Amino acid sequence: MSNEREKVAFSALTNYGAAYGPFDMDKTLVYKKVITNIGNGYDPSTGIFTAPVAGIYHFTFLYHAGGERASKLILKRNGEEITMTGDNKSQYEKSNNGGNAVCLQMKKMDRVCVVLAANCHVWGSEHTSFSGFLVCEE
Amino acid sequence: MSNEREKVAFSALTNYGAAYGPFDMDKTLVYKKVITNIGNGYDPSTGIFTAPVAGIYHFTFLYHAGGERASKLILKRNGEEITMTGDNKSQYEKSNNGGNAVCLQMKKMDRVCVVLAANCHVWGSEHTSFSGFLVCEE
Amino acid sequence: MSNEREKVAFSALTNYGAAYGPFDMDKTLVYKKVITNIGNGYDPSTGIFTAPVAGIYHFTFLYHAGGERASKLILKRNGEEITMTGDNKSQYEKSNNGGNAVCLQMKKMDRVCVVLAANCHVWGSEHTSFSGFLVCEE
Repeated sequence: MSNEREKVAFSALTNYGAAYGPFDMDKTLVYKKVITNIGNGYDPSTGIFTAPVAGIYHFTFLYHAGGERASKLILKRNGEEITMTGDNKSQYEKSNNGGNAVCLQMKKMDRVCVVLAANCHVWGSEHTSFSGFLVCEE
Repeated sequence: MSNEREKVAFSALTNYGAAYGPFDMDKTLVYKKVITNIGNGYDPSTGIFTAPVAGIYHFTFLYHAGGERASKLILKRNGEEITMTGDNKSQYEKSNNGGNAVCLQMKKMDRVCVVLAANCHVWGSEHTSFSGFLVCEE
Repeated sequence: MSNEREKVAFSALTNYGAAYGPFDMDKTLVYKKVITNIGNGYDPSTGIFTAPVAGIYHFTFLYHAGGERASKLILKRNGEEITMTGDNKSQYEKSNNGGNAVCLQMKKMDRVCVVLAANCHVWGSEHTSFSGFLVCEE
């Protein structure tokens, strides 16, 4: 009799090396450098995590940004805004950090991604990360 | 024979729309907009999470604040300060982000909440969140 | 028949009371004040977490720092840099917050710690924390 829990966990970093954005339109942030991807739910070519099983997941997205431009990241589930983080631009602040975290109920195949808002930027280095894991199956 | 784990996870956002505080006294921060509340441990009318089962829980609280006022949030368990986050006011910083996270051993019915310290404020938008989940039962 | 999952979770705060650093060399940040240490994986005399079992772990490190000096924290697994957080110094910013989080696959006895980079500092108070827990065994 199996006592196995499904194993789902990922972490990825932007890894663009320097400032990334701004762009004219909202754009899914593709975290290219995969650190962990147990269960292969995260696709580093699109930036999208697709839930391999139904359950409650925890997501964290943290970023670094230069202070001279606004920053805004939006976590979306199936295209719907769930939560966000961001900062205003300031001529005096050299850089900013921010982030948010959320527990989300997901059906199998639900998708989560982080969107870089239009006219905003992040510092696309290893400071800027997206992580998630399965808290429990449903 | 049941192999079920108890399922407990919540996330909520402040959702006051703009600056919230300062107030003359410490005040439990009521995160009004519930995103997830599996197990119904979180009460959005009081801001208090009550552990439905004994176990180890993980809590995260992240915030956004205007730079012109100080910000300070304190995570308390049964009224006792456990950890905090905050920032000084600054005439030059337009806004700040911050947060903290903690793993906490909780007895059944132990309560956790986030307190906005006297004379401090946060930006009561969807930037400012409180999340928790059961890591494992005890 | 046992249905027990291994229980591993820790949280600790720096608890140096004020500015900590800068130092001439990289230095493992010792979070002295233990809040939680289920499974005794975290050693508050060295700042090192050693995985008692193989599995996927989630780590979070969040900090506060004065704005007048640069801040940089690096999360390392077995001496290898995994992810980081930090901020530039600024004559205008009184203080900064930052942090990062990561899911990591660990073998039994793998070690994780947070390193304060040379010439950087953090505010060594209860704002500055290091937490981790076992998401699932492997």
